[in-house]
Amino acid sequence: MAHFMDVHHGMHDITSDQLHEAHRADLAIEKDEDVHFERAWADPASGTVYCLSEGPSAEAVQRVHERAGHRADEIHEVPLTV
Amino acid sequence: MAHFMDVHHGMHDITSDQLHEAHRADLAIEKDEDVHFERAWADPASGTVYCLSEGPSAEAVQRVHERAGHRADEIHEVPLTV
Repeated sequence: MAHFMDVHHGMHDITSDQLHEAHRADLAIEKDEDVHFERAWADPASGTVYCLSEGPSAEAVQRVHERAGHRADEIHEVPLTV
Repeated sequence: MAHFMDVHHGMHDITSDQLHEAHRADLAIEKDEDVHFERAWADPASGTVYCLSEGPSAEAVQRVHERAGHRADEIHEVPLTV
């Protein structure tokens, strides 16, 4: 299993409720892909959302996000962490 | 105090030792700016590094990174988190 940081652009003015709802939508189906979404951070001003996940591949992470209705614009495997 | 996600590009082939050393350089001086760098994640393949910090402003976060020798390319305040 690997860790991934994915990035969503264009999420201007996202609210806390919307971020939590999007995260819940991921959690509800993530087991189908053996993925787990651990954290998410949002900057409503620039419309940027970062999600940290663990899973077998970037493609598996993207499949969860797509089915949940919010495809990621970038997914980076992050093998190094502090 | 606010949370920030900053992004460094062009860090291709960064190693675990280099990431830890860069983080230590931030930690060594962060108190001067009332900043704390909590986590960092690196993708050596795309040369991207993400840092999560807490501090009074994006400018304070950047001043620590600049003095430590690695100016961030983007700094986003992330008031929303899951």
